[in-house]
Amino acid sequence: MLKLYYAPQTIAVATLIALEEAGAEYEPVRLDFRNAQQRTPEYLAVNPKGRVPALVTDRGILTETPATLAYIAQTYPESKLAPFDDPFALAQVQSFCAYLCSTVHVAHAHKMRGTRWVKESDKAALKAMTANVSKTMTECFFLIENEMFQGPWVMGSQFTICDPYLFAISSWLESDGVDVAQFPLVIEHRSRMHERDTVKRVMAMQNA
Amino acid sequence: MLKLYYAPQTIAVATLIALEEAGAEYEPVRLDFRNAQQRTPEYLAVNPKGRVPALVTDRGILTETPATLAYIAQTYPESKLAPFDDPFALAQVQSFCAYLCSTVHVAHAHKMRGTRWVKESDKAALKAMTANVSKTMTECFFLIENEMFQGPWVMGSQFTICDPYLFAISSWLESDGVDVAQFPLVIEHRSRMHERDTVKRVMAMQNA
Repeated sequence: MLKLYYAPQTIAVATLIALEEAGAEYEPVRLDFRNAQQRTPEYLAVNPKGRVPALVTDRGILTETPATLAYIAQTYPESKLAPFDDPFALAQVQSFCAYLCSTVHVAHAHKMRGTRWVKESDKAALKAMTANVSKTMTECFFLIENEMFQGPWVMGSQFTICDPYLFAISSWLESDGVDVAQFPLVIEHRSRMHERDTVKRVMAMQNA
Repeated sequence: MLKLYYAPQTIAVATLIALEEAGAEYEPVRLDFRNAQQRTPEYLAVNPKGRVPALVTDRGILTETPATLAYIAQTYPESKLAPFDDPFALAQVQSFCAYLCSTVHVAHAHKMRGTRWVKESDKAALKAMTANVSKTMTECFFLIENEMFQGPWVMGSQFTICDPYLFAISSWLESDGVDVAQFPLVIEHRSRMHERDTVKRVMAMQNA
């Protein structure tokens, strides 16, 4: 059986929702980020990057959200979470996931995780990074709203792995200081996600 | 026919090499980053992100290196550039690509592209980011050298899309101030890449 290491309010929420959408049997394992459980030797043996998600399969452990999502989609084909039979459509899905992981998630991370890129002692630089997050996240979401989002789901009529991934990140917008009224399509999408039973189960799990 | 927008010494080198490895017919279109050609209205109409690569296909334009690489691998299956018939092995390939795009490339970008995350006027914060790049890139490459790289190619005996992607980034190590003697496997890999005719053709193109 699959096992997923996650922490509430993190990007691992996307993988949790994908597992629920796929109807997968899995064991969720919750990490306590407030006590830095992701930095313990036990967890670093699971994922040397010290992050979530980490998906334990019978063949080994997978990390990085674009990879865990694609793996779930491919191993539960009846869920139609990614168009593996159409290389161009699949590449569009992958492109969206790559944009979220390389640009949007990274923009967000400059708020709380600035020590990934500057010294912990440089409080002024850390403050400068944090101060800029609402601007960079706003720029990213203008691109998503105006150029990428097809509606009603990210890729159009078919729900895909892009949807839980966008949902996990768009849930951070208010706390990142973004005026969400600028992004009606993204916010409607977030509401529509909250109505799904799969998302309700994951929300209940992370808020437990 | 495919068309690839690229600029020398950028991550688009990975996609160029993959096209050569696939034996694809394609037209390379070179952008001049020194004159900010990626920010012209003409190019922003191709890729609103103002970055490379952008791969023009008969169905539309694809961006983001993990997506362009996977698309090439899937549409030229005889090149065996990604194991689409093995979900776990494919997810390992995707995980490696996602790590490069979300963590390693981002670490590197803090040297010259700090204005993505702080104001252009904040010279002290930009300097702090630049100063830290050799440290973050070194940390990333310890993880690649010790935990991810299988050898002789990234994923073991089979050459995959991970190889040109790693090559494009490992080519930046010296200019990022990294002591490459710490990473013998990665440096041997880089040398082995340089011996391939496909890579020789791409190097000749970018140095022309």
